[in-house]
Amino acid sequence: MNRILDGIISPNDLKRLSESELERLCGEIREQMIKRISVTGGHLGSNLAVIELTTALHYVFDSPNDKIIFDVSHQCYTHKLLTDRKAAYVDPNEYSSVSGFTDPDESPHDLFSVGHTSTAISLAVGTAKARDIKREMYNVIAVVGDGALSGGEAWEGLNNAAMLIGNIIIVINDNDMSISENQGGLYKNLRLLRDSGGKAECNVFRAMGFDYFFVRNGNSFKEVSGVLAEVKDIASPVIVHVCTVKGKGYPPAELDREKWHYIAPFDVKMGEPLHSVETAETYENLTRDYLINKMSTDPTIVAVTAGTPKIVGFDRELRRRFTNQFVDVGIAEDHAVTFISGMAKNGCKPVFGVSSSFLQRTYDQLSSDLALNKSPAVILVFFSGISHGSKTHMGGFDIPLASNIPNIIFLAPTCKEEYLDMLEWSIEQRETPVIIRVPGIRTTSGNVRLPHRYALPAKYEIVENGTDAAILALGSFYELGAEARRILITEHGVSVSLINPRYVSELDNDTLNGLIRNGCRMIVTLENGVLDGGFGEKIARFYGDSSVKVLCFGAPKKFIDRVSVEEQYNEYGLMPRQIVSEIISVLKS
Amino acid sequence: MNRILDGIISPNDLKRLSESELERLCGEIREQMIKRISVTGGHLGSNLAVIELTTALHYVFDSPNDKIIFDVSHQCYTHKLLTDRKAAYVDPNEYSSVSGFTDPDESPHDLFSVGHTSTAISLAVGTAKARDIKREMYNVIAVVGDGALSGGEAWEGLNNAAMLIGNIIIVINDNDMSISENQGGLYKNLRLLRDSGGKAECNVFRAMGFDYFFVRNGNSFKEVSGVLAEVKDIASPVIVHVCTVKGKGYPPAELDREKWHYIAPFDVKMGEPLHSVETAETYENLTRDYLINKMSTDPTIVAVTAGTPKIVGFDRELRRRFTNQFVDVGIAEDHAVTFISGMAKNGCKPVFGVSSSFLQRTYDQLSSDLALNKSPAVILVFFSGISHGSKTHMGGFDIPLASNIPNIIFLAPTCKEEYLDMLEWSIEQRETPVIIRVPGIRTTSGNVRLPHRYALPAKYEIVENGTDAAILALGSFYELGAEARRILITEHGVSVSLINPRYVSELDNDTLNGLIRNGCRMIVTLENGVLDGGFGEKIARFYGDSSVKVLCFGAPKKFIDRVSVEEQYNEYGLMPRQIVSEIISVLKS
Repeated sequence: MNRILDGIISPNDLKRLSESELERLCGEIREQMIKRISVTGGHLGSNLAVIELTTALHYVFDSPNDKIIFDVSHQCYTHKLLTDRKAAYVDPNEYSSVSGFTDPDESPHDLFSVGHTSTAISLAVGTAKARDIKREMYNVIAVVGDGALSGGEAWEGLNNAAMLIGNIIIVINDNDMSISENQGGLYKNLRLLRDSGGKAECNVFRAMGFDYFFVRNGNSFKEVSGVLAEVKDIASPVIVHVCTVKGKGYPPAELDREKWHYIAPFDVKMGEPLHSVETAETYENLTRDYLINKMSTDPTIVAVTAGTPKIVGFDRELRRRFTNQFVDVGIAEDHAVTFISGMAKNGCKPVFGVSSSFLQRTYDQLSSDLALNKSPAVILVFFSGISHGSKTHMGGFDIPLASNIPNIIFLAPTCKEEYLDMLEWSIEQRETPVIIRVPGIRTTSGNVRLPHRYALPAKYEIVENGTDAAILALGSFYELGAEARRILITEHGVSVSLINPRYVSELDNDTLNGLIRNGCRMIVTLENGVLDGGFGEKIARFYGDSSVKVLCFGAPKKFIDRVSVEEQYNEYGLMPRQIVSEIISVLKS
Repeated sequence: MNRILDGIISPNDLKRLSESELERLCGEIREQMIKRISVTGGHLGSNLAVIELTTALHYVFDSPNDKIIFDVSHQCYTHKLLTDRKAAYVDPNEYSSVSGFTDPDESPHDLFSVGHTSTAISLAVGTAKARDIKREMYNVIAVVGDGALSGGEAWEGLNNAAMLIGNIIIVINDNDMSISENQGGLYKNLRLLRDSGGKAECNVFRAMGFDYFFVRNGNSFKEVSGVLAEVKDIASPVIVHVCTVKGKGYPPAELDREKWHYIAPFDVKMGEPLHSVETAETYENLTRDYLINKMSTDPTIVAVTAGTPKIVGFDRELRRRFTNQFVDVGIAEDHAVTFISGMAKNGCKPVFGVSSSFLQRTYDQLSSDLALNKSPAVILVFFSGISHGSKTHMGGFDIPLASNIPNIIFLAPTCKEEYLDMLEWSIEQRETPVIIRVPGIRTTSGNVRLPHRYALPAKYEIVENGTDAAILALGSFYELGAEARRILITEHGVSVSLINPRYVSELDNDTLNGLIRNGCRMIVTLENGVLDGGFGEKIARFYGDSSVKVLCFGAPKKFIDRVSVEEQYNEYGLMPRQIVSEIISVLKS
């Protein structure tokens, strides 16, 4: 039988289909989506939930004239498939031709590059305002789901959307889940609304002034398209609350919604990952085991996550076991940082695990709530540094972000022993906030002399002594420094010190001055992050008034989309021999 | 007649008073508060509104055992007066002994240093969590008002507070105002609740799972203390919605609530400022006049504020006149930045005015929503640089904050002509976001050659040529650079170039390399902000591999509370002769 899908290129092709053909199309897309994600990995659960909703949006509205903004934009697979990018979902050779997030560089149907959650309503309010100012006529639709409503900016957006006097349609994709369970009072109200078929008098959206529509079965094309047709061209702010099923149509994903939220390549028939479970030791597991042990003996240790409990290895069972000492605040990083400040100031020892790119949400809370109050909380930053990831989730900005705020000690361990030593010290000290930059995914071992205290003044570790130059190799770039040093000694006869700076945020004046006194002519800094505003520049300023030369290695200040780590290292001159050759050329100059 | 106030030292002294004495006490505090603020200036309107509420809180609860957290903490005057700091409000010699915000360094009754809004609920949730973990028993009270509810973090806090299973009391001080009018859908609901005496079925707080109490007259000690007594020791999350009158008891302040929100010293009898209206030209007025003119001819220009319309000089009349082109999003900086990204991407030319310390809220939006999408919006940063202000509102961090994000051109004008030139260019270009660092309050004039284009690659302006050294004097430190140069030439015979770098975020490689070629031995950078992660360090890195020496002048990375600008300059070595003597000493070394 011919697939309807084969005849679909753009949203216009939907308009000539009958309702039953559209229902069939959704089934075909679902089958294709499962097949594709089973090969590439991806956000399976979320995307299976929104197939009918997305198809209905493109059937009812006229993208790109009407503007559809996805939040979280990882829900965009069906949207991409329907908007000129079908090959990326049906042709295995084209699977990597699109990213997992909306991207204006790919298509005019994608309005914004959006990686993190909770921004779509604000973007939609801006878009609607521009439309009204320019006296244009189109629908603006924000599709908000997967826990994005708990983020404060969604609230700010709702608060302002309610004031618009023109068209704005906010679709709440309510699959009753964030990455893990939804958290918070708002979700109580969503549940009440679901349970009452949208009829409960107590309705947070109506309370704010929105018209409110309810779609009981958001996985029925007919039902969801019917309501969307009703609100099309409406001239006031409206909420369409659509109930969907996460993982819809793939039984294993419907059963375990957290596991299948994002999944690695898997065997469709067996419902199991293709590759055997990771047996190598990871920092996630190391952190989990450390916390389990620590929490068991000290009830004041509280692990905190903002919607990503697995970042510190806490699965459902562990969350249940430590129900008092593990808090998932939902997607609400701002709150998380202020919350741990409140806990730390009142006698608890909170540990907040967060990925580098999501830490960006918290600059003001880090500064005003945590650092200004010198609250002794600990933040573990995962997924930092150069990676083969999307431009929406870069891990290189945490150094300039967090190292230039007063009162925060920002540490960069080089291996697992040092990580655990820093973690233990950070939790037990009661002086000031500490951030630890988790050095990677798989653990490394044995780079340091321990134990150490990390209170100020900072003390760098001189691991190897040399006379001509010194390499300050920060955190996860320690081994890179060691390798560059080896080449310098063995191939160039240059005598080089190797130093583990330990601190991203602090200078060790004694050690740095000692290098001058010992006749060191050149300092090399290596950091796994953006150079601008980073560690190397602090060292360069320190030596600015001396004749010591300083060479800083790291990443440039730019957004990078899905470029391999090796390619990036090559481009930035971070391969060991590139580093060596630059050092030699400056030493000779 | 003896004042009751004279017998009050600490909250305990309230407990033995009768209700009528407490009502009288509130009157005495009000009289004293008006007198004090008429001399010192301060947040008059907000503080007059909460006298009964604060007195009732300290009468009903037992601070500091019970924890009261104010948000915005500028509502804390009565709280401070009642908690061991009365002299600061009754003795003119002691008026400056306390800050205008809560501060744990002043008193154990102040739990946190809090400057900006919307954080108290999160702090309270953390405090309550710590209490429960430690099996302690006390009340945790967050007092939230003056528009703080529109900030996203307040929502994140509410969402999580609703999940607590212990005591937390959230007092919504509803005076129907932010600094100017409240904005947004939430405030519609507050109005409905006010109008219905708290009885409306549609109740955003109940919808989230809170118990809800209503106080119709929050300026009646009896009424407010009665409800607080009712919720004391309650074992679940509760909202107490207290209606107060901004400026209560001082007729001019009740009449014009925006004007009297924060007021300079004034004549109590006349209800007028003591000092004649500022006639000097300010950047606020300059910006206002520019925008009025520009908006009148181009309907796509939209000025945006997050609750501080006067920062760009827009009073009520102007806001009415430009009702389509002036948007106050309420206290919601995150939303503001994403909102302007949405507008800019869809053909409008938004200009967002914000103070440096509040820009901190928006790091992630600057990066992920604005910069990643290269949305051509303009942000004007006011009150940046070293100032005699509170540690909660420092203006020195915007440089490391915003200059290390890709795709944002961050400009620093040196005088009004350059400011207007940059503003005009920024608004009309359609390539990328631009931030302009407004150089101060009073305008300066005539430092530059114009007009200029500010598109990349960056081009610094060499204003004066010299041979031995070059001073890169950024933005508002331009005149400091000129003065240092004058002394170097006239008193030391050193030949110095003077350069206006124009860009905080960019290097002009040609000019910087040209300085080396011309034999310049030393570069001096001057920036009015925190050195760490700033402009000077970028220059230091640039010259790191050369023999050119670099000296960076600016502020250290630390929180400073109400220290005069001159004292700070002295401490940081920023007085012209200090700068000169350091330059000379390095040139001679």
